[in-house]
Amino acid sequence: MLEKINHPNDIKKIRPEDYKLLAKEIRRFLLYHISRTGGHLASNLGIVELTMALHLVLDFPKDQLIFDVGHQSYVHKILTGRKAGFKTLRQFHGMSGFPKRKESPCDAFHSGHSSMSLSAALGFAAARDINHTDETIVAVIGDGALSGGMAYEALNNMARLRAEKKNLIIILNDNKMSIAENVGGMSAYLNKARTQKGYVEFKGNVEQSLSKIPGVGERLIRVLKKSKDSIKQLFIPGMMFEDMGITYVGPIDGHNIPQMLEIFQRAKQLDEPIIIHVVTKKGKGYLPAEKNPAKFHGVNPFVVKTGESKTKSSGPTYTDIFAKTLAEAAEEDPKITAVTAAMPDGTGLQKFGEVFPDRFYDVGIEEEHAVTFCAGMASRGLKPVFAVYSTFLQRGFDQILHDTAIGSYPVLFALDRSGLVGADGETHQGIFDIPYLSMIPNMAVLAPVNGKELREMLLYVLKDPKCPTAVKYSRGAAETLYEDQVEKIVWGKGQVLKEGKDAVILSVGNMLPEAVKAAEILEEQGYRIGLVNPRFIKPMDTELLDQLGEEYSLIVTLEEGILNGGYGSMVMQYLMQKGYKGRIHNIGIEDQFVEHGSISELRKMLKIDGENIAARMKQWLENEI
Amino acid sequence: MLEKINHPNDIKKIRPEDYKLLAKEIRRFLLYHISRTGGHLASNLGIVELTMALHLVLDFPKDQLIFDVGHQSYVHKILTGRKAGFKTLRQFHGMSGFPKRKESPCDAFHSGHSSMSLSAALGFAAARDINHTDETIVAVIGDGALSGGMAYEALNNMARLRAEKKNLIIILNDNKMSIAENVGGMSAYLNKARTQKGYVEFKGNVEQSLSKIPGVGERLIRVLKKSKDSIKQLFIPGMMFEDMGITYVGPIDGHNIPQMLEIFQRAKQLDEPIIIHVVTKKGKGYLPAEKNPAKFHGVNPFVVKTGESKTKSSGPTYTDIFAKTLAEAAEEDPKITAVTAAMPDGTGLQKFGEVFPDRFYDVGIEEEHAVTFCAGMASRGLKPVFAVYSTFLQRGFDQILHDTAIGSYPVLFALDRSGLVGADGETHQGIFDIPYLSMIPNMAVLAPVNGKELREMLLYVLKDPKCPTAVKYSRGAAETLYEDQVEKIVWGKGQVLKEGKDAVILSVGNMLPEAVKAAEILEEQGYRIGLVNPRFIKPMDTELLDQLGEEYSLIVTLEEGILNGGYGSMVMQYLMQKGYKGRIHNIGIEDQFVEHGSISELRKMLKIDGENIAARMKQWLENEI
Repeated sequence: MLEKINHPNDIKKIRPEDYKLLAKEIRRFLLYHISRTGGHLASNLGIVELTMALHLVLDFPKDQLIFDVGHQSYVHKILTGRKAGFKTLRQFHGMSGFPKRKESPCDAFHSGHSSMSLSAALGFAAARDINHTDETIVAVIGDGALSGGMAYEALNNMARLRAEKKNLIIILNDNKMSIAENVGGMSAYLNKARTQKGYVEFKGNVEQSLSKIPGVGERLIRVLKKSKDSIKQLFIPGMMFEDMGITYVGPIDGHNIPQMLEIFQRAKQLDEPIIIHVVTKKGKGYLPAEKNPAKFHGVNPFVVKTGESKTKSSGPTYTDIFAKTLAEAAEEDPKITAVTAAMPDGTGLQKFGEVFPDRFYDVGIEEEHAVTFCAGMASRGLKPVFAVYSTFLQRGFDQILHDTAIGSYPVLFALDRSGLVGADGETHQGIFDIPYLSMIPNMAVLAPVNGKELREMLLYVLKDPKCPTAVKYSRGAAETLYEDQVEKIVWGKGQVLKEGKDAVILSVGNMLPEAVKAAEILEEQGYRIGLVNPRFIKPMDTELLDQLGEEYSLIVTLEEGILNGGYGSMVMQYLMQKGYKGRIHNIGIEDQFVEHGSISELRKMLKIDGENIAARMKQWLENEI
Repeated sequence: MLEKINHPNDIKKIRPEDYKLLAKEIRRFLLYHISRTGGHLASNLGIVELTMALHLVLDFPKDQLIFDVGHQSYVHKILTGRKAGFKTLRQFHGMSGFPKRKESPCDAFHSGHSSMSLSAALGFAAARDINHTDETIVAVIGDGALSGGMAYEALNNMARLRAEKKNLIIILNDNKMSIAENVGGMSAYLNKARTQKGYVEFKGNVEQSLSKIPGVGERLIRVLKKSKDSIKQLFIPGMMFEDMGITYVGPIDGHNIPQMLEIFQRAKQLDEPIIIHVVTKKGKGYLPAEKNPAKFHGVNPFVVKTGESKTKSSGPTYTDIFAKTLAEAAEEDPKITAVTAAMPDGTGLQKFGEVFPDRFYDVGIEEEHAVTFCAGMASRGLKPVFAVYSTFLQRGFDQILHDTAIGSYPVLFALDRSGLVGADGETHQGIFDIPYLSMIPNMAVLAPVNGKELREMLLYVLKDPKCPTAVKYSRGAAETLYEDQVEKIVWGKGQVLKEGKDAVILSVGNMLPEAVKAAEILEEQGYRIGLVNPRFIKPMDTELLDQLGEEYSLIVTLEEGILNGGYGSMVMQYLMQKGYKGRIHNIGIEDQFVEHGSISELRKMLKIDGENIAARMKQWLENEI
């Protein structure tokens, strides 16, 4: 069947009796490829029939399908003629693991972060109505993403569409999970809706009333409204949405294509916003993923038969070291608490949560709340640690600035996946954290160069927290380079790793191996290159900078992040204000978003790998620029 | 009566029969002072009895009262011994118009931005429970602030407190307004709750059940839970909160102290989170404010008798020019839409909304949604304009970066109150926008030096939007300096205003008068100072910078914003990478939050006023630093 799917809308040629077979083939296709390339598995296995049903009802690329988060768009990619792309999924210059307009006109809106699809869809609807076009607009959002405040803000704005009698379809893809299991009031609420005994009866009512009427919209509303005045309301799930002005239908079975087709077809005809509650099973059709959907959320290449990862472990990751160190510190210090925004696995906090349930908070995909919640705790003497990916903390920017930094409340931000993250691509690169954190008064930002230093930094900060502090570390195995030279941490002090003469490299955090490589290359050519680990991006070690200013006529800063407002710019600004007469060059990421690829490929492309650094420095050393 | 209130808890000595008199005196006190100093009037007039009731029930500073937004904390300041501060309200080195821990131990948490109090309160509750203390924690949040997604995120996390049987009191101060009238689904929902006929009956039930039981908590829950299973549910407002695991009581009259006392006393005894829906009247007791609460939200000094402002208008403000220009452009171009986050007055969009209701969106206090909503519109060919205060757009940082800039969707951010804002102080200063916007790839950032240039810039960007673009302008009357020399805008090009020889000042936007002043002072001393209006902060005019680098051995940048990652740092970074051998100095705001005061006082303090700039430049001109 899958052979017949080569272009958008090809699925419409498939006979209904073959839908099941096609779904099976799609699952086999996903398993085959993702087990080789890695990628997001469980969410895509769960959404096969739902995506098929949407494609049977919609017309691509005219109609607009917006995926929240976007890692569940693989089936959509298959159905829009991108099967071939799966060979290069998430690889350098290969197909993205997220929707991308650049990749296909069938990808309505790029995504990566959570809870944004409803706002974008409302924007699409406004454009449709102002442009007087008639495309159908559908947003697909998971129950986890629905817990994000931004989704609520959009729901809160749906009432206008209802007043204007305009259609918008929201598919609530409810798999009872975000990445880990869902938490919070909304989750409990959906659970109630999911299990409500009134479901069948309500469904019967809707179908009955819908089937009787040709011009469905108006009358359906009336029926629904009437039902609100009766005892039936007690058995109708989704009242919360109805209360906000959004017609609710569901829950329906997200693996039953005929049922979905019926509902979706009718939903398209309504002249109001509607939320369709679709229940799917994450990992569906692949037993290891059904049993452990969190493990199979995002995977490295694995053996299909056993589910075992093919990637060999190469020593502890920074995440492992963070998790272990934090647990140890918490054992000693009852003031330490830990917060995650729906990523207990990814951030390593799972274990902490088991050992210290009273001091562990999984707040759901709610970074804004998480930050201010921590600020509140810190302001009352606790030592909260918010473990979060660099890219997702962007969501809490104002909460750091306004709620945390103005009061200088000592929250510790354990900033994981800082720097390039690789395969997830431009929506996930942690390359903005130095600028967006360093610009905030009262913030401290630290970056360890190896695993041992991460541990030392965490223990140091947790012992005596002074102000809001971020310790940023990268994805993957912890570096061991220079571990034998890790010194005691001193507030605001960097460390000279190696003396030099012709130039010095101030290398931030995970760039150390590239700096070492560059220095080696240049030293082979007769130069003597100093090497400094700044440790503190902020506050800067001004004493050390003064000293380096006296010793070196060429100072090079190196960071795996955006140059605008980065560490290098702060160093430059400081030295220039002090009247430094030598040359300063900043190496980092020029003003651009960075696509997916392996970290080494990306560094080469960005000219921030050892070879390129050496080549660039050689030019500076040779020419007095 | 007010004479007797000099310390926290003094109100408890007042006899109940005198509460009304005290309330009256407080209102007179507020009117007297705010009409002289300016400040937030209507919200404080509305919250007099509510604050009194809270103070009668709570024990300060032990108990913790957290105000959302915070501009409604004046009565709290009066009741905690800060009457004398009102003479210097919002003045330089005077009392802040917002809660401040530095100011009083009775101010639990600083605030200024919206929708953050519930998250902070949950942090306070966690600290209380881990520290095993027993303070009562109360958050006061307006119905407008409740529409912010962050508040919903916190509500979503209340379920845990319920499971742990811990108290937290949320006062929903419902005046049917944020600053302007409220919008959206939640607002409609509250309106329904407000007018529900079941109210009295329910209240009767609660009181009855409460009064019968000594150990109130447990039984109350049971009564409430039971009622959910009955037909009564249909008449109980607040089911939405109950659905999220938060007990709801109300609506109650926020000007009836005895009723509030009864409910608050009992709420303190519960072992669960409770939301108390209190209805107040914004502007209460002062007729002009009751009639037009939006106008009397934040006021300049005014005549009490008539309500007329004492401040004389000094020509159009930047906001006026923005509003007028946008309306004109929209007349010509049906693709232009305008969005505000609950500030149609403050941003000048009120009129636009009246003339073009179909293209005007007041989304409520929801900056995150607003940004992505605009991105969605822009991605479908519209020309959305989000008019927003610089400080509030911080809330949409990730939405700009992730949802807008990755796709390079041409949203126009009309960034009002950029730079120092004066009396509102550290929570509201618009001094971070250059760093947080310029660090984002694909963004353009423009700043006009006068009113005419603002108009030109807006028309230029709206004609052919290229990418997400911010045009930033400051509070107050538009500058007219150099208006006769405003040239046609060219993408990425700055303008040389005056040639010089010894040094050149690149002065961003509203700093032009200070630059002119500094240049005059220095020229009186024989120096010749060049003057440049960069126009584009980003993309930088590199051609012009190259030229200036050849002409000048001293280049000075000037901006009313944080230096870390500011315009100056970008200029410096560029010129240094190009091998510039002269000296570059950045003038701007050092790494710090800036308190309230007049803009001229603050500039002096920060040494960014004309005199100080001249003095600093003289040093650089004399000494080769």
